[in-house]
Amino acid sequence: MASDDIQVAIVGASGYAARELISILLRHPKVTITAATSRQDEGRRVDSLHPSLTGRTDLRCEPFDPDRIAAKASFAFLALPHTASLESVPPLRERGVKVIDLSADYRLKDAQVYEDWYGHTHSDVVGLQSAVYGLPELFRDKIRTAALIANPGCYTSASILGLAPLIDEDLIEPTGIIIDAKSGVSGAGRSPKLNTHFPECNESLSAYSVGRHRHTPEIDQVLSEVGAMAGRQEAVEVIFTPHLTPMDRGIFATIYAKPKRTAVEHDLLALYRTYYARSPFVRVVEHLPTTKDSAFTNYCDITVRVVKGRILVLSCLDNLIKGASGVAVQNLNLMNGFAEETALV
Amino acid sequence: MASDDIQVAIVGASGYAARELISILLRHPKVTITAATSRQDEGRRVDSLHPSLTGRTDLRCEPFDPDRIAAKASFAFLALPHTASLESVPPLRERGVKVIDLSADYRLKDAQVYEDWYGHTHSDVVGLQSAVYGLPELFRDKIRTAALIANPGCYTSASILGLAPLIDEDLIEPTGIIIDAKSGVSGAGRSPKLNTHFPECNESLSAYSVGRHRHTPEIDQVLSEVGAMAGRQEAVEVIFTPHLTPMDRGIFATIYAKPKRTAVEHDLLALYRTYYARSPFVRVVEHLPTTKDSAFTNYCDITVRVVKGRILVLSCLDNLIKGASGVAVQNLNLMNGFAEETALV
Amino acid sequence: MASDDIQVAIVGASGYAARELISILLRHPKVTITAATSRQDEGRRVDSLHPSLTGRTDLRCEPFDPDRIAAKASFAFLALPHTASLESVPPLRERGVKVIDLSADYRLKDAQVYEDWYGHTHSDVVGLQSAVYGLPELFRDKIRTAALIANPGCYTSASILGLAPLIDEDLIEPTGIIIDAKSGVSGAGRSPKLNTHFPECNESLSAYSVGRHRHTPEIDQVLSEVGAMAGRQEAVEVIFTPHLTPMDRGIFATIYAKPKRTAVEHDLLALYRTYYARSPFVRVVEHLPTTKDSAFTNYCDITVRVVKGRILVLSCLDNLIKGASGVAVQNLNLMNGFAEETALV
Amino acid sequence: MASDDIQVAIVGASGYAARELISILLRHPKVTITAATSRQDEGRRVDSLHPSLTGRTDLRCEPFDPDRIAAKASFAFLALPHTASLESVPPLRERGVKVIDLSADYRLKDAQVYEDWYGHTHSDVVGLQSAVYGLPELFRDKIRTAALIANPGCYTSASILGLAPLIDEDLIEPTGIIIDAKSGVSGAGRSPKLNTHFPECNESLSAYSVGRHRHTPEIDQVLSEVGAMAGRQEAVEVIFTPHLTPMDRGIFATIYAKPKRTAVEHDLLALYRTYYARSPFVRVVEHLPTTKDSAFTNYCDITVRVVKGRILVLSCLDNLIKGASGVAVQNLNLMNGFAEETALV
Repeated sequence: MASDDIQVAIVGASGYAARELISILLRHPKVTITAATSRQDEGRRVDSLHPSLTGRTDLRCEPFDPDRIAAKASFAFLALPHTASLESVPPLRERGVKVIDLSADYRLKDAQVYEDWYGHTHSDVVGLQSAVYGLPELFRDKIRTAALIANPGCYTSASILGLAPLIDEDLIEPTGIIIDAKSGVSGAGRSPKLNTHFPECNESLSAYSVGRHRHTPEIDQVLSEVGAMAGRQEAVEVIFTPHLTPMDRGIFATIYAKPKRTAVEHDLLALYRTYYARSPFVRVVEHLPTTKDSAFTNYCDITVRVVKGRILVLSCLDNLIKGASGVAVQNLNLMNGFAEETALV
Repeated sequence: MASDDIQVAIVGASGYAARELISILLRHPKVTITAATSRQDEGRRVDSLHPSLTGRTDLRCEPFDPDRIAAKASFAFLALPHTASLESVPPLRERGVKVIDLSADYRLKDAQVYEDWYGHTHSDVVGLQSAVYGLPELFRDKIRTAALIANPGCYTSASILGLAPLIDEDLIEPTGIIIDAKSGVSGAGRSPKLNTHFPECNESLSAYSVGRHRHTPEIDQVLSEVGAMAGRQEAVEVIFTPHLTPMDRGIFATIYAKPKRTAVEHDLLALYRTYYARSPFVRVVEHLPTTKDSAFTNYCDITVRVVKGRILVLSCLDNLIKGASGVAVQNLNLMNGFAEETALV
Repeated sequence: MASDDIQVAIVGASGYAARELISILLRHPKVTITAATSRQDEGRRVDSLHPSLTGRTDLRCEPFDPDRIAAKASFAFLALPHTASLESVPPLRERGVKVIDLSADYRLKDAQVYEDWYGHTHSDVVGLQSAVYGLPELFRDKIRTAALIANPGCYTSASILGLAPLIDEDLIEPTGIIIDAKSGVSGAGRSPKLNTHFPECNESLSAYSVGRHRHTPEIDQVLSEVGAMAGRQEAVEVIFTPHLTPMDRGIFATIYAKPKRTAVEHDLLALYRTYYARSPFVRVVEHLPTTKDSAFTNYCDITVRVVKGRILVLSCLDNLIKGASGVAVQNLNLMNGFAEETALV
Repeated sequence: MASDDIQVAIVGASGYAARELISILLRHPKVTITAATSRQDEGRRVDSLHPSLTGRTDLRCEPFDPDRIAAKASFAFLALPHTASLESVPPLRERGVKVIDLSADYRLKDAQVYEDWYGHTHSDVVGLQSAVYGLPELFRDKIRTAALIANPGCYTSASILGLAPLIDEDLIEPTGIIIDAKSGVSGAGRSPKLNTHFPECNESLSAYSVGRHRHTPEIDQVLSEVGAMAGRQEAVEVIFTPHLTPMDRGIFATIYAKPKRTAVEHDLLALYRTYYARSPFVRVVEHLPTTKDSAFTNYCDITVRVVKGRILVLSCLDNLIKGASGVAVQNLNLMNGFAEETALV
């Protein structure tokens, strides 16, 4: 630990995103993890929760105490279930700790929309207004100066990165966009349930939460904002269908959009390349990507096709890294003026 | 072997569909397999090609000889690669052998469309005109009296069964229908290739043949025919995107269609139930089906949802059984007046 | 339902073995399932617990009531957790219902051994003495006349069938036999736990219960009995190491034994073929078997090799079928004088 | 590229080990890859062979030319098929290039043993004598000064690391040691074959090369050398049984050895900890390890148990990293005086 390292805390260290985050941060040349908390695993060594980290850390889980965290860390990553972040963010922010929140609690700008989709009143509307949506490819400048980051959802990042250039350029109808998304099982978290029990979901593909997945309003909101930044006030509205796929990691979003004018594949690829020219973690490719190409990396791979007059965008990323922990570190890097790629390539 | 058993030959015994077919037929109370052929495995025992059949059959692969087959069998199942069937069907038909062809060679009614998609002139246009498309749920009566069956493709069956009730009732726009389909790897056949090499496709999801998969014109043709049977002349045109999924078996088709008038989920389910009332192998379900529910069976599971004004149909089946060998036996049963379910439940 | 069908009840219908059992019995030409019970799922349709059975049965789960079962069924299959069978078997037997118990409760002849390994006093020592161990290949004649069958464990059947010919012929040292066994995840049952959560066990192999798996005393007991039947009183003692493998189904037992005299591969294969000559579900093969060859079947595939003076036996079967539900039906067939293969090929 | 970077070439860039190697070296702070060769893919970009490397390298495959390589690189990693290294090593060594050879060509000290197992005369006996076996945990000092490294096999490393402390301390009988090993499919390389075709090996476990796998003499040789270094001349002889497991990565070796004197679990764990005290990539753990814990890392996880008087060692590692590319970089680090962990944690 160098004396000028950034000191960070991991709040909620038991899950998969936390494990990936710790693994990345332990490789980060300018960061030291000084605390890890877990309600259910208080007192346990982090490497007993996550045996893959054996030999890499001596951290032990402590109870969540904002004073202790503020004494030890200038940044906190929150890897808590939805609604739990609502309780932990305010005391940390009051003590001056900058927060990168991996839950959905600060993503939806409209507290009513949050309540509609999460069934819970938003208790920190002030915090909500100050939160910056942590998708660096779209909001890099705001992130640099933010004190509270709402880290995006995994489906959301794949979907938004796939559609942003088209919305920005006003190339597609903003409603009726179809996002047929496929996810690996780690996206469902680490709590055992019947539908993620191996003999149930192995060798099986299924759709779930059809028409009512909580990433839907998040995609709509951010893409509408992309349109607004480009000077248009049309609300973007997507039809989002998630599927569970028998693999550990990966999001694959197959996106179907209706062009406003004739679309040419070659031009679209050029547009995407330009749009992401200064984004090192979006790889615009000509071939058809597979989730495996970006698995265990912080890359989002995207290509575009035109089929019978529709634009098809294929977008994939690792749900635990580019879809959670990796982008969180990308945000930390931006907030500290580090090179965006630090610890992520 | 009962003296009045139907005698059948398997032409092309080396692949997965043939293996499943043999396994089903060995359980069939009214069928005896009297011959199996294989170009590449001539002389080998069938159970050495397919060790799972050990102890169930003593058949040995012989070369393809239409005279020998005609002497031994009144029905031949052809499990040959595309274009190979074109050479084998005419000599068998000339000798009076009825044929159930699992390849694509007799599926497309228009020889030019066949040539466009398969890059090969159709050399048996007469046979083509007599062939009946072997999807029992739509063409049961024609199948009963047919002598040459074009057994449908796996993606095709899942897609057509999912859409037929909507087309029949004129409920949706006939163009711009999106079929986002996911398949297990056995659908790619038994010849090893890089993209189906385990370390490449395991833990990975990808799209392939985007905008140019050969099942597309087959879906368009049959659904247009469904419309025509209902008295409409609109051509149905789908956007079909297949994906490779890391599992052995199963097709999952997620279908998005634009209703012509307001659609109500409950009414749609009732419509599907009525449409498939006499089809024992289509199960219209209320829950979201998984491919695993129909894996290793001859069932196609379908449900319907309405999301933001779009109709979503979810349709799944086992690509090797309901998508190939099972429906082939279903056709055999119909052609012989056996109960449709014989050997299939 | 034919008037002379055997009427059977399924006690404990929620798990995987019960699902497979019901699926097999629904195909059985001489059996009708008249009742299914489930404590946790009382009132639910069986096909809502097991969607793969949709369209095949209208059974509903009822509470366990021995009088009702005795009124409806002459046979009961018990697919209950260990120790639960101890409570259900006596009331059923008192009412004259014959029982095939898939739990471990009646497998260990010595009540003390049961208590040592299961941590529970055996409360039905009388029943225990009358129970017949349901491995047809070894105890076919006793099974025919039994009223209470202790259906063997999955690891146990693969291990015992692999070793019985060697013990019977006194070819190997009876102690220090190593059984390195690998199982698919369905062997762990249907209750979600962390170690069977997909993102934990997928893409992973691990050993568990090293040196203390409960199938160990069962293997020792039955193989010692095989020796005793051949006139020797040596206790057989195995070192049994189970491993969890990322697949749904299958047991693969790699067995290492020290021959008492020089062993020749060819002779051993001949010995195995003779030993299992009248056992239709043991396939003695020359090639190296894979679990996939016997998956979804009632076969146990076995081969033998000699390596550096050791005998290696490779034995595999489907843990849910030959290792549970299939052998249970095989037992039912024997108990009723049906052909042993009925409904099982 | 820093001016004092070590310049390295990758000879044989098309396979999985090469891909992992390139990925690790691109993160190495003191190394620059200056050339990549491939016979079959000459002229192609490395990232088109390995799309996961997109955006990370502009290398293109060139033909193998020892002069060009010697001009560009001081180290060459050879990731060639067995026997191909025999042709490439001498010209590189003659030009002063240090070589880390990932093939088996320089592992067996006795040219006759090589010929017996690989069916090929060893054409570089001089090179063979100078080669150092690249297992850092055993031969760290020799590696530091070597010019030609024979990088160990994947099964071999897991097996040797699991047994070395026991042989070193003379705790076990040196013959009759059983190594029951399970491997992920990437260990079979990148060339598609029927047995690694997804629908064949997925959902299946099987043994292969029983009694004749080529890693056997390598294990025997190195463990005998461990004994010799401890002053004993007994030949170690193992019975090695490899199994193919449906997962991408990972070796799991379950090892059974007969102790020479009474073994106590606790003491054995202490012995292993001492033996590997200065080896950062061997983690001696108390829990039962899983292959997933060490997948995608350079760690080898080991634990020990005593069962019925036998010593059981469980050893696992990632076959492509600790079993190939990672240990190769570990060797490079040692040869250059870099910290052993550089680029590997």
